[in-house]
Amino acid sequence: MKVELLSITSNPEKLIEIAGRTSHLSFNRQGKNSEKNFIKMLIKKGHTSVLEHAYATFNISGVSRVLTHQLVRHRLCSFTQQSQRYVSELNFKYIEPDSIKKNSKAHSLFIKFMEEAKKVYLKLKDLEIINEDARFVLPNAIESQIVVSANFREWRNILELRGNIGAQWEIRKLVIKILKQLKKYAPTAFEDFEIDEEKSIIRKIKVR
Amino acid sequence: MKVELLSITSNPEKLIEIAGRTSHLSFNRQGKNSEKNFIKMLIKKGHTSVLEHAYATFNISGVSRVLTHQLVRHRLCSFTQQSQRYVSELNFKYIEPDSIKKNSKAHSLFIKFMEEAKKVYLKLKDLEIINEDARFVLPNAIESQIVVSANFREWRNILELRGNIGAQWEIRKLVIKILKQLKKYAPTAFEDFEIDEEKSIIRKIKVR
Amino acid sequence: MKVELLSITSNPEKLIEIAGRTSHLSFNRQGKNSEKNFIKMLIKKGHTSVLEHAYATFNISGVSRVLTHQLVRHRLCSFTQQSQRYVSELNFKYIEPDSIKKNSKAHSLFIKFMEEAKKVYLKLKDLEIINEDARFVLPNAIESQIVVSANFREWRNILELRGNIGAQWEIRKLVIKILKQLKKYAPTAFEDFEIDEEKSIIRKIKVR
Amino acid sequence: MKVELLSITSNPEKLIEIAGRTSHLSFNRQGKNSEKNFIKMLIKKGHTSVLEHAYATFNISGVSRVLTHQLVRHRLCSFTQQSQRYVSELNFKYIEPDSIKKNSKAHSLFIKFMEEAKKVYLKLKDLEIINEDARFVLPNAIESQIVVSANFREWRNILELRGNIGAQWEIRKLVIKILKQLKKYAPTAFEDFEIDEEKSIIRKIKVR
Repeated sequence: MKVELLSITSNPEKLIEIAGRTSHLSFNRQGKNSEKNFIKMLIKKGHTSVLEHAYATFNISGVSRVLTHQLVRHRLCSFTQQSQRYVSELNFKYIEPDSIKKNSKAHSLFIKFMEEAKKVYLKLKDLEIINEDARFVLPNAIESQIVVSANFREWRNILELRGNIGAQWEIRKLVIKILKQLKKYAPTAFEDFEIDEEKSIIRKIKVR
Repeated sequence: MKVELLSITSNPEKLIEIAGRTSHLSFNRQGKNSEKNFIKMLIKKGHTSVLEHAYATFNISGVSRVLTHQLVRHRLCSFTQQSQRYVSELNFKYIEPDSIKKNSKAHSLFIKFMEEAKKVYLKLKDLEIINEDARFVLPNAIESQIVVSANFREWRNILELRGNIGAQWEIRKLVIKILKQLKKYAPTAFEDFEIDEEKSIIRKIKVR
Repeated sequence: MKVELLSITSNPEKLIEIAGRTSHLSFNRQGKNSEKNFIKMLIKKGHTSVLEHAYATFNISGVSRVLTHQLVRHRLCSFTQQSQRYVSELNFKYIEPDSIKKNSKAHSLFIKFMEEAKKVYLKLKDLEIINEDARFVLPNAIESQIVVSANFREWRNILELRGNIGAQWEIRKLVIKILKQLKKYAPTAFEDFEIDEEKSIIRKIKVR
Repeated sequence: MKVELLSITSNPEKLIEIAGRTSHLSFNRQGKNSEKNFIKMLIKKGHTSVLEHAYATFNISGVSRVLTHQLVRHRLCSFTQQSQRYVSELNFKYIEPDSIKKNSKAHSLFIKFMEEAKKVYLKLKDLEIINEDARFVLPNAIESQIVVSANFREWRNILELRGNIGAQWEIRKLVIKILKQLKKYAPTAFEDFEIDEEKSIIRKIKVR
């Protein structure tokens, strides 16, 4: 799994402060680092709509279609995904779940089946079946690439829903990687999200 | 493929007229069948936001995950889909593209591969791999069920994008079935969409 | 203020159950009143996306533009509003806040000013200024009419944000009227919202 | 009217190209200025969803509430607006339509009425009516400030709807100013929008 930050609003926290102060016309209260306290206050009061003015775009690759099918359900994001209709999937890569990898019988079944899927896909192509139809044999495990953009409010929502212990392991790994990058550029806007590496989850904490 | 209309706004065209007349407070111009001309006028002028007040919900089954992955990209709809995480897929059904069915070699490869996928899924389950991970071997062809709600404006948008000759054959079949039902309950609101059964496409036409 | 229910999904709670059971394919668990427990469970677990399949449309009149400017900020609703561009506002009606009504000096200032606004609007029209420009003198207090549609999940969001003690008095009155009607048709889906008539607020409560 | 670009995606056209090439995995076709032809192709084919990955945020001031009431109807934008609830409007500024300014009788009526509105607002405040209620006398002409963020696809939609001859004069002036700034940073993504300064409209043109 590779998560590359393609783009992020410059000085996102300063922008959030400038935008947020429009509501009360309290621009004169700005100063060095004043955005920190301003954003803490927004989050405490739940006025997170102001966080919508900052955006981040990630290029996500080496993830399964299982993951992307979950991700594209977030309707406030923008997506561009690798198409199985236009891209030929000869010799595709795939994601193997840990539970399968650790079980030698399951592992060998899984590997063999993936090789079988590649062969069948190749043979269908040789029989002049087009990508669009040959893809019907492709397994969920197949690797995909997807570019996702969302504003900070929506990223916060995704982190909460998908970093949770109830979420699927692969998407939890993804949002932890995303959170790490967001924290670099906007530490205060994501301060109340804490990573537990061991359990591979994100926890929402109270910030004083 | 089965497309069941689960719910639709009652008297949708009358509702659209009532809502639409709010803008100009022209309620006194209502009469028998006045909604027909009113809706024609809205569509001609492109004021289709008023069509958002009417809704339809469909229960779609016997379609592939290839299809549902396209459908869920429509961000103005509401979806509830059969989960491969919670539902066990032992002995799953699947969709076979016509191009494969008609090619005897491709067909036999396809069928054998689907049976193989079932066996591997079953064996993984026997090895105590949970649904959530076993599903990584499931093929795109697998049948799924999904409930979709959208307002009429969004249905019009979907019909136009997915009924088009450039769209994938399975989703074209789906939207033709949807359009047939919508036309029964709201003939004027969908009057400018014409079905070409032979080519299996929807055409947008000018209504006089 | 008049709040008329123009349209609501028929048997909304049954529909929500049918849609919701798709996810786990647990249709066999349906029975008489089974939708009640199903919806309680959805709300308890926070799986409110299923509530998006049911909709309600209200015709709201006798409210100020102050109110409608707040209402139209809810981006998941559909709106059709009386236009000050197309509708002439000669002899408009207006909303007077209680705090002004109860203060005799303020009241008389307010009333006189509204009459003045009418006169100026009329004179501008006599000088052949078109509606679109004459409306620049119209006060916030002016009455408007608006038709709003939203799904149940979004209505729940609006009730929570706008029924709250921190919300403006006029919009609180509105959402209380809306909630009363929603409770008639979908008592379980709105069971955890309680009206406090005396304080004119909506409280979110825990349902057992 | 003042329109300040607060933030825009850096190298927006390059980002759009990178995101767009994900779909076909055609990254090897990138080169110097290759984004130009790529974006032209996207627009020609109507694949404008890729334009959603780039964003621009504007700080708009010196506009009437007439304008902002129209603007906030665009549900795919993010808004933070000066609040008449929290900000006192003593000595407010206002927008006067040209048709009124040019008509000396109308002009003098208008000016006098605005001064009257200020006096009444001030007196209500002196009588201890709070902002939230005193604002009911404020006219539509009153100046407001609003921060708006949207992605390029939605800006294109707004430019088309609000730059049109049928749109209101004030919002047409606004979108022309917005378009000028967008063209500086993303000339190709907005190449098919042409400004007619004389008529104060935006025209959508075919680009070869």
